[in-house]
Amino acid sequence: MAAYRLQKRCDEEAVFVVEGPKMAAEVLASGFTVRVVCASEEWLSTYADSMVATKTYEVSPAELERLSNFKTPNQVWMLVERDSKDPKDLKDPKGLILALDHIQDPGNMGTMLRTADWFGIRRVVCSRDTVSCYNPKVVQASMGAVLRTQVDYVDLPEWLATCGMPVYGASLQGEPIAGKDAGAPREAVLLIGNESRGISPEAMAHVTHPVLIPNIGGTAESLNASVAAGILMNYLLWNSYNIKKEELK
Amino acid sequence: MAAYRLQKRCDEEAVFVVEGPKMAAEVLASGFTVRVVCASEEWLSTYADSMVATKTYEVSPAELERLSNFKTPNQVWMLVERDSKDPKDLKDPKGLILALDHIQDPGNMGTMLRTADWFGIRRVVCSRDTVSCYNPKVVQASMGAVLRTQVDYVDLPEWLATCGMPVYGASLQGEPIAGKDAGAPREAVLLIGNESRGISPEAMAHVTHPVLIPNIGGTAESLNASVAAGILMNYLLWNSYNIKKEELK
Repeated sequence: MAAYRLQKRCDEEAVFVVEGPKMAAEVLASGFTVRVVCASEEWLSTYADSMVATKTYEVSPAELERLSNFKTPNQVWMLVERDSKDPKDLKDPKGLILALDHIQDPGNMGTMLRTADWFGIRRVVCSRDTVSCYNPKVVQASMGAVLRTQVDYVDLPEWLATCGMPVYGASLQGEPIAGKDAGAPREAVLLIGNESRGISPEAMAHVTHPVLIPNIGGTAESLNASVAAGILMNYLLWNSYNIKKEELK
Repeated sequence: MAAYRLQKRCDEEAVFVVEGPKMAAEVLASGFTVRVVCASEEWLSTYADSMVATKTYEVSPAELERLSNFKTPNQVWMLVERDSKDPKDLKDPKGLILALDHIQDPGNMGTMLRTADWFGIRRVVCSRDTVSCYNPKVVQASMGAVLRTQVDYVDLPEWLATCGMPVYGASLQGEPIAGKDAGAPREAVLLIGNESRGISPEAMAHVTHPVLIPNIGGTAESLNASVAAGILMNYLLWNSYNIKKEELK
């Protein structure tokens, strides 16, 4: 309940929680404004120079443990302003866009943001019932990717209907992906569906390229959503990768 | 602490915990022997006929909650005998083998077993410091794959040195994988390394085919281990998939 209340308050205040020295360092290096920092004496003495405009509090390990969402809190907890991201970094991102239809698990959401970040995907469009990208578990699983990605929550079927790009979506009736035909146009959308029910019928209506990850005699009913997303991102981006390799020659 | 003690006891008794009606149904349909079942009256009345050889206890929701490893326990908790798996199903599995070098996170381990199961991989070989496949979180994240896979814990560098197969392993110095060249020989090993440190030098010494998932201008430092494993399994199995497609024609 405490976690729920804190999340609600963070939504009202348009801030999000970042924990641990690695993620905190990424925030300080980014364009984000930090509103509050609670940290160990050690962390504060190291980062004193970066902390000018921020309310800082030195806390004990026990106090940090009460603040933290994690079992093993680590030196620093901060509140970051959501809308303080430098917009010029994210203006009009080109290339593959990831669209998420009712993703519920924060671990999956964070992992998908991390994978998208690896593949240079700068924009993620989510149905309104997808888990918040500012959920502390999402922020952590994203390994900082949430700081570098434009994440929008929209009426997804409406957005897909008007996006003007080919939409790839995993479907059991889809075309099996295979090495030789890999790749998608530079501008395209990859749609990933809910962990148990897949892509909703309303969103599926706008899929122009249904694809299937072939299961080759396997017995599992399905893949984890973030694993399927990774396989499909890698597959769809091969053309871009091959173009880039040619350009570098 | 309670969870730790229970796990230790399960190791001593060579049993593992399975929870929820979906996984329990898979256990009952498999060759495994169930030692103890604690379940709701509703579940027991449905499965009474399958339960002949087992100690069964009817439990209240509150009792089930005390037993469960999960926040929302679901109708049934059972202890299954590890060595009761029907060995003929798993004898001498052919094809791609997944090798895991010090995987620590139970969620990653379970997801990799689930993905391997999707791709028809029947054998997983793990370093002794990899998380137990009978950890309750592994069992759950595997979605039952642990019931259908031969998982061995070995001296991994020694096993790799003597396996007599090409060993593919992710490395920053590896050959970037790309659609046109997809696929591996039918008999091969895919080696996945620890979540933060990657493949150990001792295991890396036996990698014959270092491969790299190209990151195409991305900024993330790394991929989640189970996502990387999924991308590489899909990539390496394309030859098998193409052979199978030809055979089906």
